[in-house]
Amino acid sequence: MKPTDPTDSALIRAARGLPAPHVPVWFMRQAGRSLPEYRKLREGVGMLEACMTSELIVEITLQPVRRYGVDGAIFFSDIVLPLKAMAVDLDIVAGVGPVIAEPIRDLADVKAIPDFTRDQVSFVTSAVRSLTAELGGTPLIGFAGAPYTLASYLIEGGPSKDHAKTKAMMLGAPQVWDALLTKLSVISAGFLRVQVEAGASAVQLFDSWAGGLAPEDYRAHVLPHSTAVFAAISDLGVPRIHFGVGTGEILTDMASPDVEVVGVDWRVPLDQAARRVRPGQALQGNLDSTAVFAPWEVIEAKARDILHRGRSASGHIFNLGHGVLPATDPDVLARLVELVHSAE
Amino acid sequence: MKPTDPTDSALIRAARGLPAPHVPVWFMRQAGRSLPEYRKLREGVGMLEACMTSELIVEITLQPVRRYGVDGAIFFSDIVLPLKAMAVDLDIVAGVGPVIAEPIRDLADVKAIPDFTRDQVSFVTSAVRSLTAELGGTPLIGFAGAPYTLASYLIEGGPSKDHAKTKAMMLGAPQVWDALLTKLSVISAGFLRVQVEAGASAVQLFDSWAGGLAPEDYRAHVLPHSTAVFAAISDLGVPRIHFGVGTGEILTDMASPDVEVVGVDWRVPLDQAARRVRPGQALQGNLDSTAVFAPWEVIEAKARDILHRGRSASGHIFNLGHGVLPATDPDVLARLVELVHSAE
Repeated sequence: MKPTDPTDSALIRAARGLPAPHVPVWFMRQAGRSLPEYRKLREGVGMLEACMTSELIVEITLQPVRRYGVDGAIFFSDIVLPLKAMAVDLDIVAGVGPVIAEPIRDLADVKAIPDFTRDQVSFVTSAVRSLTAELGGTPLIGFAGAPYTLASYLIEGGPSKDHAKTKAMMLGAPQVWDALLTKLSVISAGFLRVQVEAGASAVQLFDSWAGGLAPEDYRAHVLPHSTAVFAAISDLGVPRIHFGVGTGEILTDMASPDVEVVGVDWRVPLDQAARRVRPGQALQGNLDSTAVFAPWEVIEAKARDILHRGRSASGHIFNLGHGVLPATDPDVLARLVELVHSAE
Repeated sequence: MKPTDPTDSALIRAARGLPAPHVPVWFMRQAGRSLPEYRKLREGVGMLEACMTSELIVEITLQPVRRYGVDGAIFFSDIVLPLKAMAVDLDIVAGVGPVIAEPIRDLADVKAIPDFTRDQVSFVTSAVRSLTAELGGTPLIGFAGAPYTLASYLIEGGPSKDHAKTKAMMLGAPQVWDALLTKLSVISAGFLRVQVEAGASAVQLFDSWAGGLAPEDYRAHVLPHSTAVFAAISDLGVPRIHFGVGTGEILTDMASPDVEVVGVDWRVPLDQAARRVRPGQALQGNLDSTAVFAPWEVIEAKARDILHRGRSASGHIFNLGHGVLPATDPDVLARLVELVHSAE
């Protein structure tokens, strides 16, 4: 029997460290280019256009839930979407990523970023409402980019290998940096609040690039702004997932008291990750996103090992260690869901 | 008084965990695009052409030694150079990296890779001989790419963000994988042997992308081939440096008994890294390569912190955590060398 209350679902229970009927599973970027039905829907439709059209958001978010029977839907959007909605001049270029027309250089640039208001994302509110009605007992996970990762795009002007300009501002212009990250933390918290107030049952903050920082820089210049996001939505009472890539050395920092779940990539075995987070915190992860290209026996062995190690945590939500790669065979993900659900 | 015997230099002493007159310092990619004298010399000369011309190798290797007074010279080359010399069809494309004409797919492709002989790199032997004569007491560090990182270029056909094809072969075609990495370990060891027999006083094995692997995959499919390289040159008696990026979770594995020095990027503070390596092993690192773009006071504080933490190790060789970025101001590196040399 499927629970009809998403807050009593396996995913939300595991996120809270409560006993769950099975290990819940979803996949970061489960809604996306790996699905033929997604590629069809996106034909001739730009990424940001798709993210700003309620009907498309709803359909794309639901596609992987229908196909896989995953334990959670992730709201289809992009981390730069709130900025776009606030009229920051940016685009998502296929094969490149977010591209910012006028990168942030100084305090005047920061001050020129408009304020975020929920009216700018009314299409999000309506999409979340439709989604939660459709999803029934399956929880919807809201999401936002973390201030650091958002700042990296705004400062570099696009994706970057080394984030040199971002770190130069962080270390060399602390006033500009603090103003920018403070502004972004308000935006991220606001975007999450809109999703939760419209019906999302959990949220994930994506700090994809935090793992590229020296730990002391992360603690001094980045973590306070991420915890500000989490603290700003604590009154909403939904589980908060904190995720980044290559974060082994800062996992204990990311496991701040304002966080219920820590996302882990494939570099840290979950039993070791469990020792780096706070008692009661759950873990999410952590199959290598490229492991899906291996023969099934290898995938199965890796998934079982992850499930085994995940038992060391107060709660475990199975996931990949990063987003689903576009070349991923959906049938493999379907089999993974079956495996996770049937595991003892 | 400068020692005239490079094996008694600060760098080699620190590498062996012996007391040194000061903390030695060099910079990965110190010979390269950050230097105006290098850019001038490379005008109209392709990267591989430069790497295959004795006179250019010598001059480019010496440039940073003259300019900075670093404690070691790193042999100017590229990790794919031995493959090129063996007539593998590849090029180094500016702004891209190594590009392989016919990526490796199966056992026949592996078998088609010719054997490595020292005659193919006679320009290396002559360059090393000239260099060691010129360098006097300053040690020359020989280098080679590790089998995994080399394999990643050969399989992907060029640089890659996720190494999906590489990992797919590793997990899905173990016979091809083992044959390829075995062949590459013989090539890497051969390339290092040529450099040491011609006069290099230490070697570094670059496994730049090893940090992208799940630890169990690194241990099962990669480490044995890297240790084979180190073991194959143990009779030469020179210190062996093992380096990769984002390797916090596999540092203890990389600190194999065949290794004297473990290179660490900026993600792991050196006092913590010291606890992950074997007693007696030295550490090399670990200033964030982008930190050089910060104001000098920030750089100085970071460098002093690294020097302080480095005292926890049996020996410490100061370096960046990855290669010098092209936009780096050489004057900042010069100041860093002064700071490290004058530190108490």
